[in-house]
Amino acid sequence: MDTEVAPAVADIAAEIAAMDIRGAATIADAAAEALAIQAKESDAETAAAFRTEMHAAAGVLYDTRPTAVSLPNTLRFVFQSMDGTTVEGLRQSAVDAAERFQTQLDRAQDDLGEIGANRLRDGDTVMTHCHSTDVLACVEAALDQGKDLSAVVKETRPRNQGHITAEQLREWDVPVTLIVDSAARRYLDDVDHVLVGADSIAADGSVINKIGTSGLAVSARERGVPIMTAAQTIKLHPGTMTGHTVEIEMRDEAEVVDPGDRDEIGDITVENPAFDVTPPRHVDAIVTERGQFPPESIVTLMRELFGETSERPWEAPV
Amino acid sequence: MDTEVAPAVADIAAEIAAMDIRGAATIADAAAEALAIQAKESDAETAAAFRTEMHAAAGVLYDTRPTAVSLPNTLRFVFQSMDGTTVEGLRQSAVDAAERFQTQLDRAQDDLGEIGANRLRDGDTVMTHCHSTDVLACVEAALDQGKDLSAVVKETRPRNQGHITAEQLREWDVPVTLIVDSAARRYLDDVDHVLVGADSIAADGSVINKIGTSGLAVSARERGVPIMTAAQTIKLHPGTMTGHTVEIEMRDEAEVVDPGDRDEIGDITVENPAFDVTPPRHVDAIVTERGQFPPESIVTLMRELFGETSERPWEAPV
Amino acid sequence: MDTEVAPAVADIAAEIAAMDIRGAATIADAAAEALAIQAKESDAETAAAFRTEMHAAAGVLYDTRPTAVSLPNTLRFVFQSMDGTTVEGLRQSAVDAAERFQTQLDRAQDDLGEIGANRLRDGDTVMTHCHSTDVLACVEAALDQGKDLSAVVKETRPRNQGHITAEQLREWDVPVTLIVDSAARRYLDDVDHVLVGADSIAADGSVINKIGTSGLAVSARERGVPIMTAAQTIKLHPGTMTGHTVEIEMRDEAEVVDPGDRDEIGDITVENPAFDVTPPRHVDAIVTERGQFPPESIVTLMRELFGETSERPWEAPV
Amino acid sequence: MDTEVAPAVADIAAEIAAMDIRGAATIADAAAEALAIQAKESDAETAAAFRTEMHAAAGVLYDTRPTAVSLPNTLRFVFQSMDGTTVEGLRQSAVDAAERFQTQLDRAQDDLGEIGANRLRDGDTVMTHCHSTDVLACVEAALDQGKDLSAVVKETRPRNQGHITAEQLREWDVPVTLIVDSAARRYLDDVDHVLVGADSIAADGSVINKIGTSGLAVSARERGVPIMTAAQTIKLHPGTMTGHTVEIEMRDEAEVVDPGDRDEIGDITVENPAFDVTPPRHVDAIVTERGQFPPESIVTLMRELFGETSERPWEAPV
Amino acid sequence: MDTEVAPAVADIAAEIAAMDIRGAATIADAAAEALAIQAKESDAETAAAFRTEMHAAAGVLYDTRPTAVSLPNTLRFVFQSMDGTTVEGLRQSAVDAAERFQTQLDRAQDDLGEIGANRLRDGDTVMTHCHSTDVLACVEAALDQGKDLSAVVKETRPRNQGHITAEQLREWDVPVTLIVDSAARRYLDDVDHVLVGADSIAADGSVINKIGTSGLAVSARERGVPIMTAAQTIKLHPGTMTGHTVEIEMRDEAEVVDPGDRDEIGDITVENPAFDVTPPRHVDAIVTERGQFPPESIVTLMRELFGETSERPWEAPV
Amino acid sequence: MDTEVAPAVADIAAEIAAMDIRGAATIADAAAEALAIQAKESDAETAAAFRTEMHAAAGVLYDTRPTAVSLPNTLRFVFQSMDGTTVEGLRQSAVDAAERFQTQLDRAQDDLGEIGANRLRDGDTVMTHCHSTDVLACVEAALDQGKDLSAVVKETRPRNQGHITAEQLREWDVPVTLIVDSAARRYLDDVDHVLVGADSIAADGSVINKIGTSGLAVSARERGVPIMTAAQTIKLHPGTMTGHTVEIEMRDEAEVVDPGDRDEIGDITVENPAFDVTPPRHVDAIVTERGQFPPESIVTLMRELFGETSERPWEAPV
Repeated sequence: MDTEVAPAVADIAAEIAAMDIRGAATIADAAAEALAIQAKESDAETAAAFRTEMHAAAGVLYDTRPTAVSLPNTLRFVFQSMDGTTVEGLRQSAVDAAERFQTQLDRAQDDLGEIGANRLRDGDTVMTHCHSTDVLACVEAALDQGKDLSAVVKETRPRNQGHITAEQLREWDVPVTLIVDSAARRYLDDVDHVLVGADSIAADGSVINKIGTSGLAVSARERGVPIMTAAQTIKLHPGTMTGHTVEIEMRDEAEVVDPGDRDEIGDITVENPAFDVTPPRHVDAIVTERGQFPPESIVTLMRELFGETSERPWEAPV
Repeated sequence: MDTEVAPAVADIAAEIAAMDIRGAATIADAAAEALAIQAKESDAETAAAFRTEMHAAAGVLYDTRPTAVSLPNTLRFVFQSMDGTTVEGLRQSAVDAAERFQTQLDRAQDDLGEIGANRLRDGDTVMTHCHSTDVLACVEAALDQGKDLSAVVKETRPRNQGHITAEQLREWDVPVTLIVDSAARRYLDDVDHVLVGADSIAADGSVINKIGTSGLAVSARERGVPIMTAAQTIKLHPGTMTGHTVEIEMRDEAEVVDPGDRDEIGDITVENPAFDVTPPRHVDAIVTERGQFPPESIVTLMRELFGETSERPWEAPV
Repeated sequence: MDTEVAPAVADIAAEIAAMDIRGAATIADAAAEALAIQAKESDAETAAAFRTEMHAAAGVLYDTRPTAVSLPNTLRFVFQSMDGTTVEGLRQSAVDAAERFQTQLDRAQDDLGEIGANRLRDGDTVMTHCHSTDVLACVEAALDQGKDLSAVVKETRPRNQGHITAEQLREWDVPVTLIVDSAARRYLDDVDHVLVGADSIAADGSVINKIGTSGLAVSARERGVPIMTAAQTIKLHPGTMTGHTVEIEMRDEAEVVDPGDRDEIGDITVENPAFDVTPPRHVDAIVTERGQFPPESIVTLMRELFGETSERPWEAPV
Repeated sequence: MDTEVAPAVADIAAEIAAMDIRGAATIADAAAEALAIQAKESDAETAAAFRTEMHAAAGVLYDTRPTAVSLPNTLRFVFQSMDGTTVEGLRQSAVDAAERFQTQLDRAQDDLGEIGANRLRDGDTVMTHCHSTDVLACVEAALDQGKDLSAVVKETRPRNQGHITAEQLREWDVPVTLIVDSAARRYLDDVDHVLVGADSIAADGSVINKIGTSGLAVSARERGVPIMTAAQTIKLHPGTMTGHTVEIEMRDEAEVVDPGDRDEIGDITVENPAFDVTPPRHVDAIVTERGQFPPESIVTLMRELFGETSERPWEAPV
Repeated sequence: MDTEVAPAVADIAAEIAAMDIRGAATIADAAAEALAIQAKESDAETAAAFRTEMHAAAGVLYDTRPTAVSLPNTLRFVFQSMDGTTVEGLRQSAVDAAERFQTQLDRAQDDLGEIGANRLRDGDTVMTHCHSTDVLACVEAALDQGKDLSAVVKETRPRNQGHITAEQLREWDVPVTLIVDSAARRYLDDVDHVLVGADSIAADGSVINKIGTSGLAVSARERGVPIMTAAQTIKLHPGTMTGHTVEIEMRDEAEVVDPGDRDEIGDITVENPAFDVTPPRHVDAIVTERGQFPPESIVTLMRELFGETSERPWEAPV
Repeated sequence: MDTEVAPAVADIAAEIAAMDIRGAATIADAAAEALAIQAKESDAETAAAFRTEMHAAAGVLYDTRPTAVSLPNTLRFVFQSMDGTTVEGLRQSAVDAAERFQTQLDRAQDDLGEIGANRLRDGDTVMTHCHSTDVLACVEAALDQGKDLSAVVKETRPRNQGHITAEQLREWDVPVTLIVDSAARRYLDDVDHVLVGADSIAADGSVINKIGTSGLAVSARERGVPIMTAAQTIKLHPGTMTGHTVEIEMRDEAEVVDPGDRDEIGDITVENPAFDVTPPRHVDAIVTERGQFPPESIVTLMRELFGETSERPWEAPV
């Protein structure tokens, strides 16, 4: 298919591909923006032509990061609402849908934060893994509710995103204890809640999140500490409703072993999976902007949002 | 007490204190050597004076690293065997005891390795944490038995001793996959045995070992993978028989956060415990040079070796 | 706001506050009755004035026992159905909604009892905690189905409501063994079902019920005995959908220590929490008048009943 | 009621009763066919008479195998869609509903297979219990997706349906290891997924399946192996929504003890339950043609399909 | 057998029977005293006659409280040491053994307390059940070691021995929170150690203790809180080495239901078991005056103390 | 080595090899007998020659069934006691040791039965797996103690030894319910004790027993039913003290699939392991003739019986 997409759309796609635009919500916002631009700038003369252009734009966007779940969720939202028999009707419905999506997205983290904060009590100590703005939204909302919190922050090898989390918490005057990942179980006795984000969430209630989450969840359960996942609904993975598993990205070994040390160790394999899978029985609640859910019930919300299908409405019909 | 100790004893003590002599077995060997030297070089004229000198030497040695459990175990062994009413009798018994101890020590790791190797089967994949020569002795003995093994090696933050383990295994042509500590649970499904060493072992069956061991053990149990601790009997901690807990060393925060990055993160606490405590129900077997034991039975071996007391026979009577 | 409420409404509110009207269903029925009275007796001349009066009445009622979850659930039901542009239209819809609510309420316990009874088999022994009319409705329905049951009744300190349960069961000729709460685990081997009620139920599937329920549930799971919660839907707590936790009432210490014995014990703290929180993984089913649910799915029913919001439609708009 | 049913309906009923027609889907298809025939062949002159005939036909069909859950599910589907005020209207709606049901049924196993296959990875080893065409549909779809699978097949006493499963898998060139049921735990360490079917599924998330499923599920959980139930929605048991338990069929003792050996053993009881009940916490996912669900959420799907009632619309009103 | 026992022995026996002498250690001390008196006062003229008298005295003592395990343990200790061929020899050995037993007994609680205290850390909060002087000895020793402790004290129905514990702790300035037994799980999150005594301890590692201990232990394990049993070796039950189970005393129902309330409840059974049985897997350590042991290893200590037999050396040979 | 062994010894060895002599105790008795015969019939003229003959006899016996643990245990017992410097001295000590062994063996099952019976209560229902005379000795002793018992007997595929157990129990008038192995979990709720034998027992507390034991133990734990292993000390496996694992015999596939059905199934693998390994945490007690032990403590008994070595004293020195 060689339908041209609007140059601004191509630019946004390029920025997503280059990871200049990154983070689930930021990508989603940019993709919605791109579809609105495509709709507005289209000079298609027939409804069919308009649809073809929109499908082409969606295809370009989707291909940038096919494993970033917020991207197809954005496309799905807009295409499910795009309706009409005329170019103008389709255009208006697409632009409206994109804007509605952006508005909801804009509020989602605040709403989610408020809900997650309600689970925390004044004086609680939370443990974090990696860096999740959804988790931080919960902490910030709890602070805004006047609750005092402390934090035990896991550094989160290999990329030490825990440092970013620690830095943010310190700016909010939350006392922080930074530990290596291996020290988690030792500190769990002093912790009231484990808070983690999600890369994506599956229909069977599994939480796909930064490598180490599943081991942390198992230890938290064994130590009697509740564990909560904070995740906007753009993280819900529609394909999993029909059994698809989420592919785990394997990242560069240089994140794990400094290339300078590599030779010394010798001819070994270094594996660096970005995420792991935590089964629902080790998680107490998934907090979204639409309320909190036991992980075993998240499929209900997915059916409300996506219907039953895993079809991809943004793909051009053959 | 200002009894002089032999200069060679003082030298050995200084090397232990400076950590030039390090590692449980090396320290034990040096301490036994020092006591033998003290006994040989003593020019005490009465049995009482000889004993006073020996107690002084033991005190100097003990004070170098009071939390290194192999040190008092060495002293205990020699003093329990030192017997006699004359200087010569005492001297001979002390020198004999020290030599016997060294001889046993010399064989211990090989014997232990043979026993641990018997638990492994041809084709097994083992997962390691930190760097333990007792664990490596098991692997080496298994290789000598003609078994093929593979290894998943955890890097073991903060000091990455997993790199040393990986390097050694590669020299023995064991295929190695190196992972960050957080990836352990994800790889456990491919693992047949988790092998860990011990810093010390308590009478209640707890294993004190490198930070991260307890979380690994919990995950291994949850994944159905057996976990074995390889530890010579010099790691058995007599004080724990009378309820004493093992003090966990807190190490320098610079191991966790590079001082260069420290300022950026801000005013946080960094905690760096060297070890954690794994309860016996999460460990399948403790392999020593005296045979293998369920952790709940290790107290039996401790009573055989130490009697019931936690008295310190090497301390000078008041 | 100084809008007058009908005197009969004020009387009912006073009786609820004084706990002359008590029990979740009785309070709910009285509150619906009060709203119907307010609607019937209103002499408001505009729809807005009528609404203001109704909000005032709701406020008076709500303030009597803000932690009794059936009260706001009643108000919510009526206000969600109150619709119209004229006084008469509003009045009629409010009266109708109140009556419909009362009718449903009237049937709810019987319907619930029938469903719960279906889970029991002839010859079963049940264990009860505290005194729950919803639980007793299940037992009564099972007896009506011709099933023979026996019961082990926990006395349920501090207020010994188990005595009331025992008395009721005896009237129905159910053989009863009364035990202290601490004896529960010992008797679980002879028990087929643990039956408990609920003070309220949270969106994350937690059951808030009389103190001791969570420990009982943990023991029941360990002993392999299924545990069922009987709770009408007026016990579902809408606020928990947005993460709010249920506040646990701390009751008078005189319930725990007889004031006469208080001095003898000396200067200690006595704490007397009325309820505790049982996580969903320790409960097998929640039986409501709308069917039975695994606790992890009760959020689905809450969303059906309440929508997604935790807004309080009975509160006067500012 | 002695309304005559069409001879073809009586024939089908007789074949179901004689188990010439057997298997949940085959029964469902035949029952739908029978209702369509009854509708087409009816010469009722009034809508009421038509309804009476249809109820009579449903009653005859239902009585053949009242515990076969797919039978009432079929009747329910057709009667829920049968609507009209004239004979022709009713006839047409009944015939249409029956055909729609058959069409869906026809696709259901393929759809389910596709979803289940998505959970499997190339190279996986699966363990099966009994013989389930729904499970085999998952395996077949995975093979069609180009995945290589191996299988450990439990023989499944007393009727050795595992032999049928083994035979089918061999035809598809899947390497099979056949074991006695008792050997399951020993082989679980080599297995990636346990796949079982269902006789019926209850609203509380329990899976009723061939005797031995629950013990297998407990061992699989203990060994860290995920377990998946493949079951078309005709297996969902509406009566369980209102608490009814599923009656377990006790089969002939001759299946267990060869009558020739019976005398030798002496006067003992032989019990041969056909099924057992696996609680939802031991199952990871239920795969249906409508998507996959954690067992704790299957009640949501039941409410979508059946509403809240357990009424039997196919029964003649009194 | 109508051998006369010394009047002072009969008096002591009477006091034990009347529970004027009560508590495991007090009974043991009195029984040893009685045997020493019998030995001293005997005017037997032959060794055989002396032995007969001693057996008679032992029999009288044993029959007072056959289920109080410290009683036969005392008798066993003295009879195992009674040796000689002359009256004087026997007399002396018996008196010596009795005194040695009393001396050890006198030290035992202090020694045990010291060992138990070593498990506690400064700042810990402990939870207690019932009233155990062995547990209190651990707390007292910890306070003497300069550790600050707080306590959550369960009242321990039906006899509220928790009040005695609370009173004692207050005298030692330990901050106490008193709760009903059912509140234990709610408070476990604030607790560092659960401390319980023992009525007796079995060879399979089970702890027989005040009713409620086993449920508490199960909850403590689930909440991740270690549980320690403090018990002198006179609580070790020799009969259990040969499989005998410990008979659980059923106490007066008037302890559970005030006789005044009894009629109101009606014709029910009240059961009041004094003790329950906690399996070893729910206990972390048994602390005795001879050191601490994992419960699974206590049989080793029993074999040291008692040999392998469960014979009763104090019983007169036929 | 071509030392001749006595013809009677060769005959016994041949019978063991042909499995005419079978069963752990019967083999042990025969081997002791054979060694006594060899000793008596030896016409060696020097102590060295006598020893050589005895080693030769032991070698012939050992080689018949090297995996039958009672065989080396017998040889070990006799050789550990064979002592002397003259032929006569050696002969006498060997004959005495063999007789002592046989005497102990003769009593062992009765003693074990008595101990196991003490764990059972009047009215208990026991579940059995396979056919174990040690288990039956416990049941018989309990019946002799006047206890009424019932039994649920698993058939124990593939060889249906449960039929033999059922037959024996019926002869003793124990009511028996025979079930397929897969039905175990369903019947566990009606069972008070699971009783199993052992093929051998390892130093790490593992129980090696008939395939299916480990799955049964996991289910028993999950259902809260205690599980007891009855095993004479001749089943303790000395080699496991030094880490050796017990090799699991793979038996003929014809036991699993009737050769007649084999072709129909097609080209599959049939695996038929005779035993599996149950870890100690799933077993409550091991009952031997020397008392009962938690599995984690059995190593203590092994050290008492065998010392620390796994050397084979019956093997001829090189």
